[in-house]
Amino acid sequence: MISKHAVVQTDLIGARVEVHEFAVIRKGARLGDGVVVHPHVVIGSGVEIGADTEIFPGTVLGKAPKGPAISRAIEFVPHIVIGPGCALGPNAVVFCGVEIGTETLLGDGASIREGGRIGARCILSRHVTLNYDVTVGDDTKIMDNTHITGLSCIGKRVFISTGVSTANDNSLGLYGYRKEAIRGPTIEDEAAVGASATLLPCVVVGRGAIVAAGAVVTKNVEPGVLVMGCPARVVRRLSA
Amino acid sequence: MISKHAVVQTDLIGARVEVHEFAVIRKGARLGDGVVVHPHVVIGSGVEIGADTEIFPGTVLGKAPKGPAISRAIEFVPHIVIGPGCALGPNAVVFCGVEIGTETLLGDGASIREGGRIGARCILSRHVTLNYDVTVGDDTKIMDNTHITGLSCIGKRVFISTGVSTANDNSLGLYGYRKEAIRGPTIEDEAAVGASATLLPCVVVGRGAIVAAGAVVTKNVEPGVLVMGCPARVVRRLSA
Amino acid sequence: MISKHAVVQTDLIGARVEVHEFAVIRKGARLGDGVVVHPHVVIGSGVEIGADTEIFPGTVLGKAPKGPAISRAIEFVPHIVIGPGCALGPNAVVFCGVEIGTETLLGDGASIREGGRIGARCILSRHVTLNYDVTVGDDTKIMDNTHITGLSCIGKRVFISTGVSTANDNSLGLYGYRKEAIRGPTIEDEAAVGASATLLPCVVVGRGAIVAAGAVVTKNVEPGVLVMGCPARVVRRLSA
Repeated sequence: MISKHAVVQTDLIGARVEVHEFAVIRKGARLGDGVVVHPHVVIGSGVEIGADTEIFPGTVLGKAPKGPAISRAIEFVPHIVIGPGCALGPNAVVFCGVEIGTETLLGDGASIREGGRIGARCILSRHVTLNYDVTVGDDTKIMDNTHITGLSCIGKRVFISTGVSTANDNSLGLYGYRKEAIRGPTIEDEAAVGASATLLPCVVVGRGAIVAAGAVVTKNVEPGVLVMGCPARVVRRLSA
Repeated sequence: MISKHAVVQTDLIGARVEVHEFAVIRKGARLGDGVVVHPHVVIGSGVEIGADTEIFPGTVLGKAPKGPAISRAIEFVPHIVIGPGCALGPNAVVFCGVEIGTETLLGDGASIREGGRIGARCILSRHVTLNYDVTVGDDTKIMDNTHITGLSCIGKRVFISTGVSTANDNSLGLYGYRKEAIRGPTIEDEAAVGASATLLPCVVVGRGAIVAAGAVVTKNVEPGVLVMGCPARVVRRLSA
Repeated sequence: MISKHAVVQTDLIGARVEVHEFAVIRKGARLGDGVVVHPHVVIGSGVEIGADTEIFPGTVLGKAPKGPAISRAIEFVPHIVIGPGCALGPNAVVFCGVEIGTETLLGDGASIREGGRIGARCILSRHVTLNYDVTVGDDTKIMDNTHITGLSCIGKRVFISTGVSTANDNSLGLYGYRKEAIRGPTIEDEAAVGASATLLPCVVVGRGAIVAAGAVVTKNVEPGVLVMGCPARVVRRLSA
């Protein structure tokens, strides 16, 4: 069912696809069988969407990064690949050059910048923002209003709670963009980060470690420990 | 005035209703007298809107929760009741199964999940996210970018500042969804929570208590006291 | 190129303007040469847009503040002036009575309330919310999910990281809106504020000072010092 009020410029559309009113789908976009496109969605020309994925109103897939005032050089490919069985939006934004695995959920207003690689069965909840070139492993959940900075690396089965902040530049942007000095946190498999925690540039949170709510992580966290406080210190070793 | 560019599938529309361009209103939705629907709004079939409520562009009323990767069972009713005199959006999202009282304001991008019960004369400011089954009493204000976790209970005349995080699972999601172990904070009438504060699962903030900015609340807070710090401790008793 | 699916009620449109599908542009709006308006954008009647500015899908320019439940009296002018070479959105919101300088970037869902004065070459990143009557100087960057409270004053070449909260009312809204008691922070030129920091009402962060990640600033910060902790204390003087 393609609404007569939609603008569909591609013919690469599978069986049983629904496109609702006032959606805009550009030439060259590919929609797998059973994809549902709600009203007011925009899908750019390099976007490929797996079967049975549902895209809620106002979501934008295929935004080109545009950067007056951005200090680093912006590079991206126009392609986006979204796996089957995902649910995206409403009002989510996926920039060019992103890949998303099977059955992943993007909440309202979630936004993924260019170069993102998101695994299968992930949740990126409402208003979660991922900056450029972030990797997220399978089965990882990131809760509402959390920001993941550019060049972060997040493992599998990780849980990141709400209101978490991450940073990638110890100079706080004061010296422009020095590519060699910029790196976000690394969070290894099965680690968990509590609400309102803050992770500073380059820190590694080891496998299975827990960062308590409100902690400010300034140094690497060993695998399998619980850290708390500001600055975060080891409180105890977790039983495996 | 119904724009010829809108899609209006219901005829349950009161007097003096305005529906602007590219809005989509599904069959069965009810709009009271004087309701204003701005461009690009989507209103689902089970939505009932009180008189003189104004719905700003891009707002979505009646989203069904859809949860690939959500570990709990999702239940909801398709019905939404929104009281008279409200202002919603732009780009706000109200899920199915929500009730909102008279003259309440939802800021841009505010989002209320299924089972929400919001009182009269509340403000849920920009990008505020309420998870499932949250109760908010009359005359309560929740400021920008704050997240209220599922199964939280917030009283009347409460003030919650900006950037506040709340959590409902002490196991940080590591054991899946264990319904009996999940509970958000309770914030009693006339309490206030400062900017960037964090409330851990199950804590009760007593009537008229104040949680200082940046505090991490790990235990119940007695009525009428001021708490500060990480973990939050009582600083003094407030005069009534 | 004006899409036949757009609603364009103004004729004050420059050369080489693009207006895409389902955009709505009200009578009296002015678009400079080379402006690009993506699908589902709404531009109100008092909006003036400089040359070559690009407005991404779902962005709303010219929202009138509407305040059931807002305790202060709301005043605004319908006019908005946006400089040349800006990039706005997707899903950004600019209220009435705002001015934005040359080549400034608003990220997805960024929102500027009435009375905002934003300089040139600024970045207000994703989901950044500015409340009413905020001033931001040239070349200032405010990162994702940060909230700037009403009546704040931010200088030039300032960097404000992600997840920063600011407050303007020491009584936490408990006594209604007392105009004489309300004031946001002042952040002087070239200062930097780290991730998850909190700035309390009326504080002044001096020129070139640095507020560390997670700090809670309760008192004025002298120019040129580094402060840390909760409450924030001077750690050292920065070399100039």
